[in-house]
Amino acid sequence: MEDSGERYERGIKALQRLSGEEGPSPVTSLADIAPDLGRFIAEFAYGDVISRSELEPRDRQLVTIGALAALGNAAPQLRFHINGALNAGLTRGEIVEALTQIAVYAGFPAAINAVTAAREVFAARDAEA
Amino acid sequence: MEDSGERYERGIKALQRLSGEEGPSPVTSLADIAPDLGRFIAEFAYGDVISRSELEPRDRQLVTIGALAALGNAAPQLRFHINGALNAGLTRGEIVEALTQIAVYAGFPAAINAVTAAREVFAARDAEA
Amino acid sequence: MEDSGERYERGIKALQRLSGEEGPSPVTSLADIAPDLGRFIAEFAYGDVISRSELEPRDRQLVTIGALAALGNAAPQLRFHINGALNAGLTRGEIVEALTQIAVYAGFPAAINAVTAAREVFAARDAEA
Amino acid sequence: MEDSGERYERGIKALQRLSGEEGPSPVTSLADIAPDLGRFIAEFAYGDVISRSELEPRDRQLVTIGALAALGNAAPQLRFHINGALNAGLTRGEIVEALTQIAVYAGFPAAINAVTAAREVFAARDAEA
Amino acid sequence: MEDSGERYERGIKALQRLSGEEGPSPVTSLADIAPDLGRFIAEFAYGDVISRSELEPRDRQLVTIGALAALGNAAPQLRFHINGALNAGLTRGEIVEALTQIAVYAGFPAAINAVTAAREVFAARDAEA
Amino acid sequence: MEDSGERYERGIKALQRLSGEEGPSPVTSLADIAPDLGRFIAEFAYGDVISRSELEPRDRQLVTIGALAALGNAAPQLRFHINGALNAGLTRGEIVEALTQIAVYAGFPAAINAVTAAREVFAARDAEA
Repeated sequence: MEDSGERYERGIKALQRLSGEEGPSPVTSLADIAPDLGRFIAEFAYGDVISRSELEPRDRQLVTIGALAALGNAAPQLRFHINGALNAGLTRGEIVEALTQIAVYAGFPAAINAVTAAREVFAARDAEA
Repeated sequence: MEDSGERYERGIKALQRLSGEEGPSPVTSLADIAPDLGRFIAEFAYGDVISRSELEPRDRQLVTIGALAALGNAAPQLRFHINGALNAGLTRGEIVEALTQIAVYAGFPAAINAVTAAREVFAARDAEA
Repeated sequence: MEDSGERYERGIKALQRLSGEEGPSPVTSLADIAPDLGRFIAEFAYGDVISRSELEPRDRQLVTIGALAALGNAAPQLRFHINGALNAGLTRGEIVEALTQIAVYAGFPAAINAVTAAREVFAARDAEA
Repeated sequence: MEDSGERYERGIKALQRLSGEEGPSPVTSLADIAPDLGRFIAEFAYGDVISRSELEPRDRQLVTIGALAALGNAAPQLRFHINGALNAGLTRGEIVEALTQIAVYAGFPAAINAVTAAREVFAARDAEA
Repeated sequence: MEDSGERYERGIKALQRLSGEEGPSPVTSLADIAPDLGRFIAEFAYGDVISRSELEPRDRQLVTIGALAALGNAAPQLRFHINGALNAGLTRGEIVEALTQIAVYAGFPAAINAVTAAREVFAARDAEA
Repeated sequence: MEDSGERYERGIKALQRLSGEEGPSPVTSLADIAPDLGRFIAEFAYGDVISRSELEPRDRQLVTIGALAALGNAAPQLRFHINGALNAGLTRGEIVEALTQIAVYAGFPAAINAVTAAREVFAARDAEA
């Protein structure tokens, strides 16, 4: 039995590990319009699910970029999670390969658009470095 | 420069490693209706993409079950790839965790239906054992 | 300026041409639960859109089976329109080729499931013949 | 600050109100394969979100059946929520009308399949009555 | 038996009630490229379906924003219908709550992108006021 | 038995016929980030599938724009293939009609967004002429 404050704090930490603390998190960016949705992201998505030890952070990111690339309708989140995949230890080559594989399961347009998202993330990191 | 025969053979081997050679493969099951689609699965999907060394088979299966669970419209292929995920070294616990995570990115119905697919695959393997 | 009765009659005729009048149409099969949805199918979908001369029936079926195969979530309608594609003059070979092409744009699972739908339609027609 | 036990209990109550306590809930039906996914449904989906007072249960069901009918890939959940819509006070006529409207926003196949799901739910309730 | 002119006029009225007559309607904005698609929006979507009395305008907008937020691939139409939801009597809080609920049924990315669309609509109305 | 070089060359030719050689092809535009994905587009998508004689280029484009318009999540590829449809011999009127028909199978938002893509393609060609 755990209170919501612990879940929130654990979620924020998991989110910061993933995002590298660069730029605003989805939690803070929703504060003006849907603060409870932002809170659920911290408490539930990251605090309850993503921070669990049943699957390595690197493995979780493979699942997530596979899901978002296949859906093909959430470019900002795909970019966020490609960046998170790098922070979780996946190489650029592994990420491009994973997104190339999406051509097999969701078609070439989904793969091309996902790889285009990866290019933007890689370029932004190069510009910062 | 490689000929199509090499690609086909490499693909069939990759497909057999993944499926554990149990039951008919998608290549043979399409022979009556769309043999070229079956051949493309062997040559391209498995021969060109899935057999590449840029990503481990286990990692590829995380991407694939993430994609198929999120799309939620290809139950036979999701079951095939959950079975393949086990053959590639993922544990039942890791697979269930990966599919649970789909609730975050594609909603609870997609996650519930994916976990239901996993139950069927696990039961079929238990029945064989 | 045309009244709804003319649209309905034109729609029913277009629907019968497409389906070959075999079995219950979507219009009659909805009569018990959503008669107005059935009427809209006749008046709008077939009466207003599908019966227009701007595109040949055969060409319309290529668009429709492309759309339904890519969406991958409407198997009964895909079967209905594969049957309609045959009635509109497409050959079995052309239909299988069109559905195979879906692998490029929506992935192999969508193509495999669409080709499986085609096999069912072809078998049903062979059984009737 | 609330503990997880309170969230779970509130969620189970909201779930029972929606389902009318007939048949197994998604929480118990996942107990063998993905108990934590079942727990998240109780704690988060129903305990945190669905039980909030910001939107009436009846209104929530309109959103949910709109979402599931449009996605068109989660028939068991659509049936569950059509039943829940009746329990939340929507009439059969309102539900059929809402699902008919899906033809405008997600196409006729999605609407037809959703209305077919409604027919099954209505028939099951008639059989019980 | 009703003629198409009556349907068109009733549709345009329903469309204006929903949109508040601010800015170009989808009917006029399609006049240069696909006038018949624009006409079908007036006659069928609004004239035949949306203007029916079987469901309140407010309730229809809950279904529509649920559908469009879940699909996640039609941002301009989602913004149009969030604005329409306000005109039909839903409060900003109810709309944000409905879109937050989409996280449960279609995942957090869909909910975040829908809430982002709502922020744009609310800001545009504030700027006009 | 054919080597990959022949497939690549045949694919590039098919791609150039479709695109009219205007602007960068998807193959070259992926060279910096995912060259193998670009190569697969040439070898597999165009060399193995699109260049086959089982279906006319014009017919293939009807399938493709039907698929991409229905999915509604790949605007750059839809524009590319609307342009390709013109190069393959479809008229503007036929393309607009095909995309209007998408309203029936995937809803009005998908049709409106597809027709908007067509307007951009037609305007770009007019500007060049």
